[in-house]
Amino acid sequence: MKLLLINPNISDSVSELIAAEARASAPEGCEITVMTAPFGVAYIETRFEALIGAYATAQLAAEHHAGHDAVIVAAFGDPGLAALREVLPVPVLGLTESALASACLLGHRFSIVAISQRIQAWYREVVEWHGLQQRLASIRALDRPLASIGAVQADHGERLKALCEQVVAEDGAEVIILAGAPLAGLARSLRGQLPVPVVEGVSSAVRHAVSMVALQPGRARSGSFAPPPQKAHQGLPEAIARLLAAG
Amino acid sequence: MKLLLINPNISDSVSELIAAEARASAPEGCEITVMTAPFGVAYIETRFEALIGAYATAQLAAEHHAGHDAVIVAAFGDPGLAALREVLPVPVLGLTESALASACLLGHRFSIVAISQRIQAWYREVVEWHGLQQRLASIRALDRPLASIGAVQADHGERLKALCEQVVAEDGAEVIILAGAPLAGLARSLRGQLPVPVVEGVSSAVRHAVSMVALQPGRARSGSFAPPPQKAHQGLPEAIARLLAAG
Amino acid sequence: MKLLLINPNISDSVSELIAAEARASAPEGCEITVMTAPFGVAYIETRFEALIGAYATAQLAAEHHAGHDAVIVAAFGDPGLAALREVLPVPVLGLTESALASACLLGHRFSIVAISQRIQAWYREVVEWHGLQQRLASIRALDRPLASIGAVQADHGERLKALCEQVVAEDGAEVIILAGAPLAGLARSLRGQLPVPVVEGVSSAVRHAVSMVALQPGRARSGSFAPPPQKAHQGLPEAIARLLAAG
Amino acid sequence: MKLLLINPNISDSVSELIAAEARASAPEGCEITVMTAPFGVAYIETRFEALIGAYATAQLAAEHHAGHDAVIVAAFGDPGLAALREVLPVPVLGLTESALASACLLGHRFSIVAISQRIQAWYREVVEWHGLQQRLASIRALDRPLASIGAVQADHGERLKALCEQVVAEDGAEVIILAGAPLAGLARSLRGQLPVPVVEGVSSAVRHAVSMVALQPGRARSGSFAPPPQKAHQGLPEAIARLLAAG
Amino acid sequence: MKLLLINPNISDSVSELIAAEARASAPEGCEITVMTAPFGVAYIETRFEALIGAYATAQLAAEHHAGHDAVIVAAFGDPGLAALREVLPVPVLGLTESALASACLLGHRFSIVAISQRIQAWYREVVEWHGLQQRLASIRALDRPLASIGAVQADHGERLKALCEQVVAEDGAEVIILAGAPLAGLARSLRGQLPVPVVEGVSSAVRHAVSMVALQPGRARSGSFAPPPQKAHQGLPEAIARLLAAG
Amino acid sequence: MKLLLINPNISDSVSELIAAEARASAPEGCEITVMTAPFGVAYIETRFEALIGAYATAQLAAEHHAGHDAVIVAAFGDPGLAALREVLPVPVLGLTESALASACLLGHRFSIVAISQRIQAWYREVVEWHGLQQRLASIRALDRPLASIGAVQADHGERLKALCEQVVAEDGAEVIILAGAPLAGLARSLRGQLPVPVVEGVSSAVRHAVSMVALQPGRARSGSFAPPPQKAHQGLPEAIARLLAAG
Repeated sequence: MKLLLINPNISDSVSELIAAEARASAPEGCEITVMTAPFGVAYIETRFEALIGAYATAQLAAEHHAGHDAVIVAAFGDPGLAALREVLPVPVLGLTESALASACLLGHRFSIVAISQRIQAWYREVVEWHGLQQRLASIRALDRPLASIGAVQADHGERLKALCEQVVAEDGAEVIILAGAPLAGLARSLRGQLPVPVVEGVSSAVRHAVSMVALQPGRARSGSFAPPPQKAHQGLPEAIARLLAAG
Repeated sequence: MKLLLINPNISDSVSELIAAEARASAPEGCEITVMTAPFGVAYIETRFEALIGAYATAQLAAEHHAGHDAVIVAAFGDPGLAALREVLPVPVLGLTESALASACLLGHRFSIVAISQRIQAWYREVVEWHGLQQRLASIRALDRPLASIGAVQADHGERLKALCEQVVAEDGAEVIILAGAPLAGLARSLRGQLPVPVVEGVSSAVRHAVSMVALQPGRARSGSFAPPPQKAHQGLPEAIARLLAAG
Repeated sequence: MKLLLINPNISDSVSELIAAEARASAPEGCEITVMTAPFGVAYIETRFEALIGAYATAQLAAEHHAGHDAVIVAAFGDPGLAALREVLPVPVLGLTESALASACLLGHRFSIVAISQRIQAWYREVVEWHGLQQRLASIRALDRPLASIGAVQADHGERLKALCEQVVAEDGAEVIILAGAPLAGLARSLRGQLPVPVVEGVSSAVRHAVSMVALQPGRARSGSFAPPPQKAHQGLPEAIARLLAAG
Repeated sequence: MKLLLINPNISDSVSELIAAEARASAPEGCEITVMTAPFGVAYIETRFEALIGAYATAQLAAEHHAGHDAVIVAAFGDPGLAALREVLPVPVLGLTESALASACLLGHRFSIVAISQRIQAWYREVVEWHGLQQRLASIRALDRPLASIGAVQADHGERLKALCEQVVAEDGAEVIILAGAPLAGLARSLRGQLPVPVVEGVSSAVRHAVSMVALQPGRARSGSFAPPPQKAHQGLPEAIARLLAAG
Repeated sequence: MKLLLINPNISDSVSELIAAEARASAPEGCEITVMTAPFGVAYIETRFEALIGAYATAQLAAEHHAGHDAVIVAAFGDPGLAALREVLPVPVLGLTESALASACLLGHRFSIVAISQRIQAWYREVVEWHGLQQRLASIRALDRPLASIGAVQADHGERLKALCEQVVAEDGAEVIILAGAPLAGLARSLRGQLPVPVVEGVSSAVRHAVSMVALQPGRARSGSFAPPPQKAHQGLPEAIARLLAAG
Repeated sequence: MKLLLINPNISDSVSELIAAEARASAPEGCEITVMTAPFGVAYIETRFEALIGAYATAQLAAEHHAGHDAVIVAAFGDPGLAALREVLPVPVLGLTESALASACLLGHRFSIVAISQRIQAWYREVVEWHGLQQRLASIRALDRPLASIGAVQADHGERLKALCEQVVAEDGAEVIILAGAPLAGLARSLRGQLPVPVVEGVSSAVRHAVSMVALQPGRARSGSFAPPPQKAHQGLPEAIARLLAAG
């Protein structure tokens, strides 16, 4: 099985974290490819940055999905996820959606621990988009500048753990979601140290991608996730045009 | 006052409908500019097409917003709206959001009449994103192929009016929203013919844009609609890079 | 264009604030009339006071709406608004509904800053009635006695500004709503001093009233906002009886 | 125990139905008084009619509550209920609220069967105000003109029963609420004829009023149901002024 | 009238509290029987303990309901309530459901005061199951170990009263629900000492049971509360088998 | 890896379907054990039957979980799932929860196709318990008696397929959930024949159980899914008593 993970951001250091956690959590024989957006920002905290990341992801996915069994949008917030699900012939998963699915299988109410104050509003809207606001106990986040996006775990490890303890003790979290690709691997390194189950997006997405491939649920040929109807277009990157034509 | 309306699609015929309705509904002295996306599809029905339209809109807005008092994303579904609200120094409005605001000022429950079956799921998600699902009586849509996107009103006028009557009689609509830029002007031409108030996006957006400019509520310097924090980026169109730098 | 604003309370000092802000925010050529309830209380904080204010408003509206293009219920909480929308032949708007519409056009989550602790429960219920509870970040209010309802801004200006800063910093407000007719004009005097957009009811209602008149959406002849069905009645003020007869 | 039921409408024939059902359902020794609004309409179907009925009810309650152990607002829709709960020194109940409480004790999802098409929107809003929309299976209503409001049961009995059967068979109702004071007594006469439990407002309100008196839960001296704060007022009916002074 | 209250737990001391409060709140002539679960735990705080309590309650109800006019599941959380409502030929009520009904008749938003931190999540889920989360102001609970479940009121009386004051002052509770059979009688002993109405489950359930018997709403013969369809079974306690056969 | 699936019902024929689908969908090297409830009913359609099934499942799980890496409650509706999650030292999954997780990874709105009319209300409540009602497009079900619970697929195959087509065409389902252990294997045999993705509970639960074991999220030692606090108990089956003691 071959999985393509697309980092919607330009940060190679984060792509390395993604790749390491993806490989560590994939079953034997599952081949992992991680691509980094050729354009965009270092990491997404806002809706506008997500808009850019979504388009970069779409281009990479259009160009490179062939030969893979599933595609993973590897940023929390899942920029472009629902859009790509319409046009790609294989399952598409995102970090948020996958982490939410894991959390829902482990408890009733979950909290999200995130890397910046600014990022929280966007995450809240994504949870609302999924209709899961009733199960969201809280979102808490680091409140310090991030010197290096690839080193957040090293630079802020203690504080992140403290936030995890806080959402359990004060907010009633029954499951913790560590949010954001820069935290890939942190759930693994915190194993056994927290009082409730902890999940994160990369490992969840890899595992659920494997499951969705195995289940063979079939692709939508009707309804709102079927390929878009054929219609005039112009000026699109060739790979995207090909996707639309293949619909 | 100068308003910039951006058609996220490549259809000049729809831009003309937008321009005509915008000018008809603008107060005296309000100058209307309509731009058409240089790349994209003929009209948006799906999340993937909206992803493309959002990026095209962002580029046009970045390049051309200077000198305007407000910017309007001129497609129902509002592709890129919340994102642009973060980065542009002037109010940004969308057709859906504006039509919803008008509808909420005229009654409690509204229905949306739309141009294609496929488009309905996306519209429903936009209404949910706004948190207004409790006030949505129904969405109904044309079920015929659209020979010409600029001629939907002419080709399907009777059926659209019948759908309007149906949402009142069967779904309990207290207000009708005619959805989609291709229907710009239809509320005007149906005036007096329907048993409940009727609104559409272009005129609503123009009027609410004028109000938001007049009210001078101030721009977000904090919170999730403030400009994105400064951070590394690469490969972005120059106008978008300038926007991020101006944050 | 002629707008009739009805203060559902007996406080002339508040009517003056309403009139000043209404005139300051109205477009040129828009004529503003403000009427004060002949019976009732000094200001509404409770459901019972709102019941009284609603009836007083209904009587004034019935007697005086003729010759106006729109009517505005000029108390936050909108006593009698939906009821009057059924019987008056012109658009009817309220301060809360209008401020909510403005806030929704400027951000996703809003907070309400109000003049008394007691008033908060009623405001929350009004927001819930509009179905917007998911977008309500918080309500915060003054906790001191109000010596003079017409002088709240002067007496409590610093504390009101501090509450505004608090809802942004602690509650995640992306837009601030200054609630209550006694705060009419405060958004204007705080311009540029707060980190997120600020709106209030009077200016929002005036602007949206102008828009609703301009859009000519039509009056309900069917559904729950059509005039009440003809039926026996007795003992009603003559103007109200006339309204029911005109249905 | 003495209960005061106030018919917010001018229809003596409906007051008689209310009185008969109230007496039939009250426990031994419970004294029933029914008063009819001196001004207003024949029956309430709309928000404006409810506004009038609320004010009439408030006046009657203010004048006549003394000496009673509880007051019942005897129209479905409960005009003025929450307002009166603030100012009266005894429990206040309404027909809708009481029927909803009964329905919730008998099943999970309920349907409302009502007397006119027009009345449905208002009932839906009342259910939403109570936060019970998730448990509302449907509202169905007569669609014929009502020749005599006091004779609805006689004139439309078969159709009402058919509507009851329909909400069970088609809408999944687990409990039926017969809505509207003109249907007082119908649940009693349909006993044993319907496949799910049936409740109505008058008997429910009488029984729950007795319970609330017996439980002695105490009156609010704080929070939003405490008496309104003392403040200036003018022009109010003497009994209402007394209520405000007693706060 | 004869009411059977079933304590789903093995604690005789709590059964005595239940019996005392039930008898104190029942109308004259109402005969109270309280049974204690022959197997299970001392008191229920968790979903697993509720599962055990539900089965114990089902067995007792199956064996002993005959001759009673209504059955009350006498633990907050209502283990097995909806299930028993399907199979018993008489009304079945629970403490939570009954206290919620009382609270909804006395105010708009309520808080729950409970006996242990652990118990809160389960209570929250029960409130959500009833669809009343919008009206839940807060849940607060004791945070000390309970030396004796039958002596909670004596051991923690001051702290419980303080929690009651806190939910009013800080959480906006308009009504207080004292939760848990071990608190039976506490509302009675706190009468007049708290600033908003206070209710608890046992007295509410007894009163509402009397009402549901008096109203004679009829038993479900259709829909999801009708007796389960006949089908093969094996190994069931004889009384439960009889219930299924009687369907 | 070893998975224990517990059929909460007494139907060996359904256990065989469960075992076959579990083995077909498990990854290589995953060992499947299926146990059948020693007491209970043939299949669960109602809350009371679920109460019995929950207790039977708890006993089997207590006795037999040792040596397994995860436990699956193998009935749609998940009787006892949340309860067992508190007490078992390994991940516990249910068919409904797992199918919902799969559906949410494949589309936005899903429909449930079920085996009997009666079963629908219970399923709806389970979806509501998960907070996913906004994403539930519809529930549709067979309306014929089930001659043999192990042969539902053979006896009603055409009708089940027709229901699947109906939820897509009429209800807007983007994903179909085939509900109920008696339908285990049907998604597999319908592969490629339906216009949207199709999932069911057994294969979803097996796959997600494997993922939850692989992710090693940790067990709750705090919060509402931690083992129940130690307390007095009596009369419990030995295995359950051991579980409580191990907490």
